[in-house]
Amino acid sequence: MSTKKFLLDEKDIPRQWYNLAADLHGPLQPPLAPNGAPLKPQMLAKIFPGNIIEQEVSRQRWIDIPEGILELLTLWRPAPLRRAKRLEEYLKTPAHIYYKDESMSPAGSHKPNTAVAQAWYNKKFGIKRLTTETGAGQWGSALAFACNLIGLECKVYMVRISFDQKPMRKVMMQVWNAQCVASPSPDTHAGRQILKQMPHTPGSLGIAISEAVEDALADKSGKSRYSLGSVLNHVLLHQTIIGLEAKKQLCLAKEKGPDVVIGCVGGGSNFAGIAFPFICDKIHGKKIEIIPVEPTACPTLTKGPFTYDFGDTAGLTPLLAMHTLGHGFVPEPIHAGGLRYHGMAPLVSQAAVEGLITPRAYDQVKCYESAMLWAQTEGTICAPETSHAIAATIDEALKAKKEGKKKVILFCYSGHGMMDLAGYDKFLSGKLTRYALPLGKLRKSLAALKRFPKIKRSRKE
Amino acid sequence: MSTKKFLLDEKDIPRQWYNLAADLHGPLQPPLAPNGAPLKPQMLAKIFPGNIIEQEVSRQRWIDIPEGILELLTLWRPAPLRRAKRLEEYLKTPAHIYYKDESMSPAGSHKPNTAVAQAWYNKKFGIKRLTTETGAGQWGSALAFACNLIGLECKVYMVRISFDQKPMRKVMMQVWNAQCVASPSPDTHAGRQILKQMPHTPGSLGIAISEAVEDALADKSGKSRYSLGSVLNHVLLHQTIIGLEAKKQLCLAKEKGPDVVIGCVGGGSNFAGIAFPFICDKIHGKKIEIIPVEPTACPTLTKGPFTYDFGDTAGLTPLLAMHTLGHGFVPEPIHAGGLRYHGMAPLVSQAAVEGLITPRAYDQVKCYESAMLWAQTEGTICAPETSHAIAATIDEALKAKKEGKKKVILFCYSGHGMMDLAGYDKFLSGKLTRYALPLGKLRKSLAALKRFPKIKRSRKE
Repeated sequence: MSTKKFLLDEKDIPRQWYNLAADLHGPLQPPLAPNGAPLKPQMLAKIFPGNIIEQEVSRQRWIDIPEGILELLTLWRPAPLRRAKRLEEYLKTPAHIYYKDESMSPAGSHKPNTAVAQAWYNKKFGIKRLTTETGAGQWGSALAFACNLIGLECKVYMVRISFDQKPMRKVMMQVWNAQCVASPSPDTHAGRQILKQMPHTPGSLGIAISEAVEDALADKSGKSRYSLGSVLNHVLLHQTIIGLEAKKQLCLAKEKGPDVVIGCVGGGSNFAGIAFPFICDKIHGKKIEIIPVEPTACPTLTKGPFTYDFGDTAGLTPLLAMHTLGHGFVPEPIHAGGLRYHGMAPLVSQAAVEGLITPRAYDQVKCYESAMLWAQTEGTICAPETSHAIAATIDEALKAKKEGKKKVILFCYSGHGMMDLAGYDKFLSGKLTRYALPLGKLRKSLAALKRFPKIKRSRKE
Repeated sequence: MSTKKFLLDEKDIPRQWYNLAADLHGPLQPPLAPNGAPLKPQMLAKIFPGNIIEQEVSRQRWIDIPEGILELLTLWRPAPLRRAKRLEEYLKTPAHIYYKDESMSPAGSHKPNTAVAQAWYNKKFGIKRLTTETGAGQWGSALAFACNLIGLECKVYMVRISFDQKPMRKVMMQVWNAQCVASPSPDTHAGRQILKQMPHTPGSLGIAISEAVEDALADKSGKSRYSLGSVLNHVLLHQTIIGLEAKKQLCLAKEKGPDVVIGCVGGGSNFAGIAFPFICDKIHGKKIEIIPVEPTACPTLTKGPFTYDFGDTAGLTPLLAMHTLGHGFVPEPIHAGGLRYHGMAPLVSQAAVEGLITPRAYDQVKCYESAMLWAQTEGTICAPETSHAIAATIDEALKAKKEGKKKVILFCYSGHGMMDLAGYDKFLSGKLTRYALPLGKLRKSLAALKRFPKIKRSRKE
C-alpha cells in the first residue's frame, strides 16, 4: 500500500501568513486615484474596514493569524497534501506529483480561506454587513458561508447570465443565509440606469462590482463594507496558508522541496497561496520553477503589459499597477469563469516583472483533456479553473521523463467540479470551442490605457 | 483552538471487514427461489462472480481486505471523523457529537467503498464488464468511478425521470468512462416491451434492475456480471470499514465509545457501515443505542412486516427475508431518492428483529430544517439522505441536554448535497411536501406478499 496523503495535525496549522511584499525587490507601485494622485489609505475607509486596509499596505513579512480565524479555518483545514501516484504511473514519469487539495472546503474551493478572514476582520471592526459581486459563484458562495459562520449579513450581486445558468449557486448562498440578486439589479442606482438602457443585458463582473460598491457606500449607518475575493494584497496574504501548509507536508513526505510549483491564475489568489512561500525560498537562493497558468482566451501575464489600470470594468476602483489586458477587455466565455479577469494581482504582476515566475497559457480544450485524464487516473473531477494547473503539471511531468530527472512537482488543486459539469458535457460531446485571442479587441482595450500614469520603477531585470 | 478532526494514518486503515452474520442470534433466513425452494449459490453464478457469492453466504466474523482493494480505498480513505462543536454549542448540549465524513470520496458518498471492492473482485474473477441500475445517480456514479479505476466496462441503467432531471449525474459517469442510458431503454427486451406499452413512462428502479440483470445475462461471452449498491450481505460487509475506522478515531478523541450510533437507511448500506461494528459490541454486552432513520414516506423498518419479498419491483430477484413495504410499493417522490426503497437489507432487518436497533422515521420537512441548521452551524451542505441522520442526532443531543447527560453521539455523514440543491431550493421557497404515508397503497402492496413462504424462525425476543 503506497502512501498517498500527508495530513497535518490541527495543532500544526501555520500561525502566521506570509507577506511577499516584504521580500520583493520592488519598489511596489502604489495604487493611484484615477487622476494619478497617490491614494491615501483613508480614501479606502468607506469601502474596507481599517484593519484590512492596514494589512493591504503592510510590508511586514509575517502577519499573525488571529485565534478566532484559526478556529474557523480548522472547520476544514489543514487541507490534505496528496500524491498523484496513479497519474505518475500512467505517465511513466520519474517525477513525484503532489497536489494541495483545496476542494475539501465547505464551499468547494480555496476561496473560504480569505472569506473567513475578511468576515472576521469586518466583524471585529464593528461592521454588520458585507456586499460583494460574483461571476460563476465560487466567491459569492464562499463569502456567504463565511458571513453566516461569523454572523454578518451578506448581499451578493451575481452576474445575470451566471445567475440564470447556475441557479444552484444561488441556492447555496441562500442556504448560508445570504441574499443573492442578479446584476444589474433594481437595487442600486447603477443597476437601474443600466437596466433602463439595456433591459436584457447578461451583466458583467464590472457592473456587479459597481453595484456592490455602491450598495456598501449607500448604507447611511456606516456599518456596511465591500469585500473582494482576489487581486488585492490582503486577499493573497490570507491564501498563503496553502503553501505554508504544503511546505510542512512535503517534509512529512520526506521530500527536499518542490522543483516546480504550479497554480492556475485569474485574479491570482490561489496561485499566490500555493506559490508565494516558495517564491520566498527562490528569492533567497533556492532553485524552483514557479508557473502560473492562464487561459489563452485571457492571457493577462503572457500578453498583457505591466501598467496602471482599473481593477473593474466600469472604472470605479483605484488604478492598480499590474499586468492587464485593459479593463475594457471582455474574455471569451470559457468555462473557467474564475480565470476570466482582465487584470492580475499587483503582487503576482510584480513577481512576474522581477522574473520570479514563468507564466504560460493553455487553451480550454487541452485543459479539459487533462481534466479527463486526471479523473480517470486520480478519480476526482476538478473545477475548470483547476484543469489549467493540471495541464501544466502533466507537461512538466513529461518533461521530467524526457530529461530523466526525479523532479518534485507541486500544484494547487483549487476546487472541485461538482457545480461545473456542463463544461465536461460540452467537451464529451465535442462542442467545446478552443477560442483564439481576439487581437483586434485586445489592441483596442490596451489603447485605452495610454491616458493613465506611467509606472516609475527601478527594475531588477 | 478546539480539535475538530480525528485523522487516521493510512497505515492504520482497517485490514479486515466485520461480518455481522457471525454474531447475530439468528438463524439467518436463506434467500429462496420464488417457488419457495432453497436458493443454491450456483443459481446466482450468472449474476455475480463466485468470489462475491462466497462472501455473500459467509459466516466468518472477519474477512481480509485484499491489498489491491486497500490500495484503491486509500485514494480517499481513511475518512475523517469530525466533531460538530459548533452544532453542540448552538444546541447548548452536554453531548459530544461526532460524525464520520463519507462525503469526501470522489463520487461524494459512501458508495465507492463497496463499488471499488465489487469491481476488484469481478476483475479478479475474469469479468470484463459490469451492469447496474441507479435511481438518483449516487450508486451509478460510484460504480462508474470504480470500474474506470480498475479497468472494467460499465453500463448504468438510470431511471428515466432522474436521467432527465439530473443530467449532470450522467456526465459524471461519462467522465469516468461509463455508458449511462435512460431506463426503460431500447437496449433490452424488458425495456423494449415496456416502451411499447408505455412510451412516456418515467421508469422505476424495478424496471432498471430488470434491464441491468437481463443485460448481464445476455452477454454470450460470459464476461458480464451485475452489481448492486446496497441490501446484500457482501455490500454491507464492505461498508463496515466506516464503523471500524470510527472506532479507532473515537480512541484518538479519547472517548470511551459512543452511547448512540445513528445512520439513515434506504437499502441499509451506510447504516450498516457505521453501525455493525458497534452492534457487535452491543451483542457482547456494551450499552449502545443504535438508531436507523428512515423517511416517513418509506417507513420500511417502522411499518413494514418481516417477511419474504422480492428485492426488486418486477420480481426477478430471489426472495429475501426482510422488513418490506411490499415490492409493489412506490414511495412518494421525496428528495432523498436513496431512501426510496421498499425493502431493507436482510442483515439490518434481522438486527431489528433481534431488538439490537431502534428504528425511527422522520418526514422530509423536519429533515431539511435539520440540514439547514447543520449548514448554518457546521458549514457543509449535506445530501437529503444524510439529513435524516442529522435530524435524529439533533433530537438525541437535545434529549441528552434534558437528561443532563454527557452522551457521545456518532453518526454517518453519508454524502454531500452538491448535486441535490434543488431540494433545498424547494424547502427555501416553502414548496416542500411533507407527505403522509399512503395507507391504502401500503395495504395493497402488503397483501400481495401473502403468497410467499412464511419465515420459520427461533426468535430471540
